[in-house]
Amino acid sequence: MRQRNKPWADDFLQENKHIVLQNPNQYHNNWKDFFGNNNPIHVEIGTGKGQFITGMAKQFPNINFIGIELAKSIVVAAAQKVMEAGQDNVVLLNENAADLLEIFAKNELDTIYLNFSDPWPKNRHEKRRLTYRTFLEQYEKVLHPKGEIVFKTDNRGLFEYSLVSFSQYGMKLEEVLLDLHAHEDPTNIMTEYEEKFSAKGQQIYRCKTTFK
Amino acid sequence: MRQRNKPWADDFLQENKHIVLQNPNQYHNNWKDFFGNNNPIHVEIGTGKGQFITGMAKQFPNINFIGIELAKSIVVAAAQKVMEAGQDNVVLLNENAADLLEIFAKNELDTIYLNFSDPWPKNRHEKRRLTYRTFLEQYEKVLHPKGEIVFKTDNRGLFEYSLVSFSQYGMKLEEVLLDLHAHEDPTNIMTEYEEKFSAKGQQIYRCKTTFK
Repeated sequence: MRQRNKPWADDFLQENKHIVLQNPNQYHNNWKDFFGNNNPIHVEIGTGKGQFITGMAKQFPNINFIGIELAKSIVVAAAQKVMEAGQDNVVLLNENAADLLEIFAKNELDTIYLNFSDPWPKNRHEKRRLTYRTFLEQYEKVLHPKGEIVFKTDNRGLFEYSLVSFSQYGMKLEEVLLDLHAHEDPTNIMTEYEEKFSAKGQQIYRCKTTFK
Repeated sequence: MRQRNKPWADDFLQENKHIVLQNPNQYHNNWKDFFGNNNPIHVEIGTGKGQFITGMAKQFPNINFIGIELAKSIVVAAAQKVMEAGQDNVVLLNENAADLLEIFAKNELDTIYLNFSDPWPKNRHEKRRLTYRTFLEQYEKVLHPKGEIVFKTDNRGLFEYSLVSFSQYGMKLEEVLLDLHAHEDPTNIMTEYEEKFSAKGQQIYRCKTTFK
């Protein structure tokens, strides 16, 4: 996405580079050192305004979280949430999901979250969907062999597409929920979108899938 | 399912054994001979009152259809529909799906339809679900390697379970639709249940899956 020039955002990110890391490629294969512990590393791709990743960081202090968000003006909002949370187990990256292999080494991650990704509903945009096979190839590389992808969306077409895409790639579905909020799950942290759409009675879909 | 004794049903079935075949094991590995042609063979497991199988037989005269229904009183209703349809490419069996391997030989079938199967929602009844792995093992044997299973249900829990069961068995999802009737599909023949539930605005789920 092309960003309008936002000098205030640049200033903010410069001042808060301990939260929104600059040049994250330097931590390639060294993320455990960066966090200073041996805890699992979970990455959210398309972190939006950060409600999910900060909520998860609070709920699971023994997991390290990295939120990736391409839009500069939005990562600023996420950074403010991370600051308020005051957790040391979560950082953000203002990067493109397509650059995952430059940022993370083989097997370096334990879980990848895809939350309410852009559905790109037109067939000719299929390759942009974060569950298209070229993305799955990247996830497979950076995830530990026992790692999993947790995918949530309210978009029926994207969910249908993604189940087939995972399956055709050879991945295994571990869980499928077609109305997430019909189940009691106190560990489910809602994204901003999820809160808004489920309040309107919209179904939320979730699946967990592995490369086993 | 235990059946109440219905002598009138026995009489009916005896008179109509060209529609509800008796001792179908005799056609094991000989179904193409039975139909007298080389057309593909599609089987519906749990054929109910026969609306789907007769509708399909009319729509696809170059496919042979076999409907299997365990309940004697219900197969009688299906037989009446088949009679009215006057098609020679559809027969019924009053048999148990668990006996599939006695009725069909390896690779003998091209498609299996599971329509609105009993969800058996209790965990302890998992093994009775027609998408439990012991059933999948049978389907894999009787289906041609390129054959597929087409599964429709309105039961969310059964659909969620079945997607995971197919995937864990190593099957590939070819299509997933989470609201079948939101799509225009003039080839979709509705079962009695499907007509009733979709009229109430209930979502119908469908998937197509293969052993490839």
